[in-house]
Amino acid sequence: MREVFQQELREVQERLVEISGFVAVSIENATRAFNESNVSLAESVIADDDKIDAAAQELDELAINILARQQPVARDLRIVVSALRISASLERMGDMAEHIAQLARYRFPDKVVPKSLRPTFASMGALDVEIARKLVELLKSEDVAIAEDIRNTDDKVDALHLSVFDKVLGETWKGEAIDTVDATLASRYHERFADHAVSIAKKVQYLATGDWIPADA
Amino acid sequence: MREVFQQELREVQERLVEISGFVAVSIENATRAFNESNVSLAESVIADDDKIDAAAQELDELAINILARQQPVARDLRIVVSALRISASLERMGDMAEHIAQLARYRFPDKVVPKSLRPTFASMGALDVEIARKLVELLKSEDVAIAEDIRNTDDKVDALHLSVFDKVLGETWKGEAIDTVDATLASRYHERFADHAVSIAKKVQYLATGDWIPADA
Repeated sequence: MREVFQQELREVQERLVEISGFVAVSIENATRAFNESNVSLAESVIADDDKIDAAAQELDELAINILARQQPVARDLRIVVSALRISASLERMGDMAEHIAQLARYRFPDKVVPKSLRPTFASMGALDVEIARKLVELLKSEDVAIAEDIRNTDDKVDALHLSVFDKVLGETWKGEAIDTVDATLASRYHERFADHAVSIAKKVQYLATGDWIPADA
Repeated sequence: MREVFQQELREVQERLVEISGFVAVSIENATRAFNESNVSLAESVIADDDKIDAAAQELDELAINILARQQPVARDLRIVVSALRISASLERMGDMAEHIAQLARYRFPDKVVPKSLRPTFASMGALDVEIARKLVELLKSEDVAIAEDIRNTDDKVDALHLSVFDKVLGETWKGEAIDTVDATLASRYHERFADHAVSIAKKVQYLATGDWIPADA
């Protein structure tokens, strides 16, 4: 029984790794679609989000099923409950990638943000991609050093997020209302994407250190 | 044992009702702070969010504890897992109320949005308050008619959300960049608040009808 349970826990972990891999591809494509106004790539990101949602739902079914059959306690129970929360965060990360792609599609053939902000969003996108790839590694290896790394990378995203508002609200901003709306939304989506990764990283960290997982972590 | 479990389930439900009550007060105060540029009220909303986070975390501890001791299966198990998800959504609703209050505080003594949009945000705020109050009733009574009602009210919020962008991107918009940023963020926060309520309503509905709960519901 115990061995079966360990095998099932491995399957839960493998599925989380798989879903995080889907999310990494989505943010990579969403970032490219955003930077290059690539509408067909944007549409593929939007289509792929259903795949992420379905995979997250299947994982939840598996986790509930394990709870029912194996009745885990203590740390084992917290691992399964954490898996449910991690899948919810991954599902939201997929939504953020989809929103970024939708902005690219709405504005096509125009670019989403004016020239002056493109380097900032290129950096934010690159950092989100970096975070997503680190998250795959973290879920694979459960190496808490990667969790720390994700939190540090998120700090860079937050700094860029603030810099977007400095620019948009600064003297030199010449953007139209639509540019201001897009910059505001795009920055928010990039920031939230990274936040969800941090919340997953904290859960992995807490599990590894045996601490409890705050609801807002 | 069974009786103890039923009593514990009642406690979980009572705590969800309590947290939803905190959220209802937060959105009521956030909406007033937003409409009236009431900075002290805004600060109380921001302070109260810690209370909501702590209550959600305590509920999660209780739910995990019940899973460990009572080892529920079938519908009982899904009720406890749903409680974990509902508390996460309530926690996010509290965050949205806090964000709305933060906008009011940042812009004080100015109002957050220009005159032309204030009636729209007054309506969005009133609908979010209505939704929050209905959510308390839903969690108390588990009456699925209320769940349906919440979903219909959310449609009104979504329509207002779109109308904000129509206005901001329309010919007649005279707002500064800061007005555009505030309108964009405030509209997003109001819309997300209602979305989380809908996701909770769906979970209660699915539980009542015995269906399974989609990850993205």
